[in-house]
Amino acid sequence: MLELLLNRRTIRKYTDENIAPELMTGLLNAAAQASNTGNMQAYSVVVTTDNSLKKQLAPAHFNQPMITQAPAVLTFCADFSRFTQWCKLRNAEPGYDNFKSFMASAIDTLIFAQTFAVAAESEGLGICYLGTTTYNAQEIIEVLQLPELVIPVTTITVGYPADNPAITDRLPLESVVHYNTYKPFSEEDINSIYAEKEKSAFYRQFTAENNKETLAQVFTDVRYTKKNNEFFSEKYLQALKQQKFLVSE
Amino acid sequence: MLELLLNRRTIRKYTDENIAPELMTGLLNAAAQASNTGNMQAYSVVVTTDNSLKKQLAPAHFNQPMITQAPAVLTFCADFSRFTQWCKLRNAEPGYDNFKSFMASAIDTLIFAQTFAVAAESEGLGICYLGTTTYNAQEIIEVLQLPELVIPVTTITVGYPADNPAITDRLPLESVVHYNTYKPFSEEDINSIYAEKEKSAFYRQFTAENNKETLAQVFTDVRYTKKNNEFFSEKYLQALKQQKFLVSE
Repeated sequence: MLELLLNRRTIRKYTDENIAPELMTGLLNAAAQASNTGNMQAYSVVVTTDNSLKKQLAPAHFNQPMITQAPAVLTFCADFSRFTQWCKLRNAEPGYDNFKSFMASAIDTLIFAQTFAVAAESEGLGICYLGTTTYNAQEIIEVLQLPELVIPVTTITVGYPADNPAITDRLPLESVVHYNTYKPFSEEDINSIYAEKEKSAFYRQFTAENNKETLAQVFTDVRYTKKNNEFFSEKYLQALKQQKFLVSE
Repeated sequence: MLELLLNRRTIRKYTDENIAPELMTGLLNAAAQASNTGNMQAYSVVVTTDNSLKKQLAPAHFNQPMITQAPAVLTFCADFSRFTQWCKLRNAEPGYDNFKSFMASAIDTLIFAQTFAVAAESEGLGICYLGTTTYNAQEIIEVLQLPELVIPVTTITVGYPADNPAITDRLPLESVVHYNTYKPFSEEDINSIYAEKEKSAFYRQFTAENNKETLAQVFTDVRYTKKNNEFFSEKYLQALKQQKFLVSE
């Protein structure tokens, strides 16, 4: 099992083979058994297999080809809508239109999503997460017709692998693990943590292709710029307000 | 593997056996191979095994006994601190002090956390998530000495099981899965979805013990009240501002 987790790789190209409905149901049932807050199951997933709907979703994901090429696109949503509706029908006054409830349900959503991902990979499927979900949540809300108190948090494309990429490098474990309390990094620590990445031929070429002096500049100037991050911060906060998870000023 | 996921249960009581450091490292390495945004690995985990520190953490988790009883307490944090420090040392202008970056890194944190949880369970350990992490983030920040751009998102207690609880019920899959687009529920749908839960002896007793008419009222009036949700919404938003993930008004 640890071997499976250690040897995984993200799959961005899929064969034409569809996922059998019984398999999809089995994976989702396994995922639903994962931990969640108070057993409220304040999440939902929209499984999109219809080609015309996948095409409608594509622009929200900046037309990344996985969306239309994968046999199934799963949009995982923080969802207090169903629970709120149940409360109202049971003479109970719901109070889940707030940021704390969003956080609890986003946490549950991601635990559910990642358990689905592990289950899918263990059955020979390949998956890819789409971070664009939090960039263009409003567009996704429209296409998938999500009601108030439902907001997309992440998307996974899934299918049978038509690709076998190399396993992606990771920083040494001490970069992300602290013992007992958080230990700040010295300049020397940072140099050591990033040394292998920075000297690799792959990242040196990547830096050169982007016409940058340092690998870090590819991130700050090209891939995840301050300007874009601030623009999409405002956009997701707006989506949270629109879906009633955050009070408007 | 699906069997493992389907038969899991949350473990709240642990034996005195410590987790061997090599095993912990193996689990964390497996977890770090999970998907993350742009391979930035914008997360960290603080593994607390020191008894006096576990005691200091306990009040933030409302003194739930798992915190002091478990051999290890893992606080999973959204973390753009290390990455930002690297950028600054590489002549790159970081722009990760915003809500979008928090969302991306919280997503990666939870994918990392849940992969750790699955890995731990596959090795015979038992885990429990603590939702209290987003209630009292500021107190946790102080105990664990988290710098700016680091904020706790979830906590997992882990150890060898000293308990074998029943598998927890889940709603029927159609409660959380929508096909192609989101289908609103009718009153009949809601009645049907919650029927099994509401008629079970366990939840009827639970409702009676809480002196409530309906199970939903136990959630709205006792467990997750509007008043508390609003109080802790403000508190976590304050923590996000304090840690520089959200601009102060």
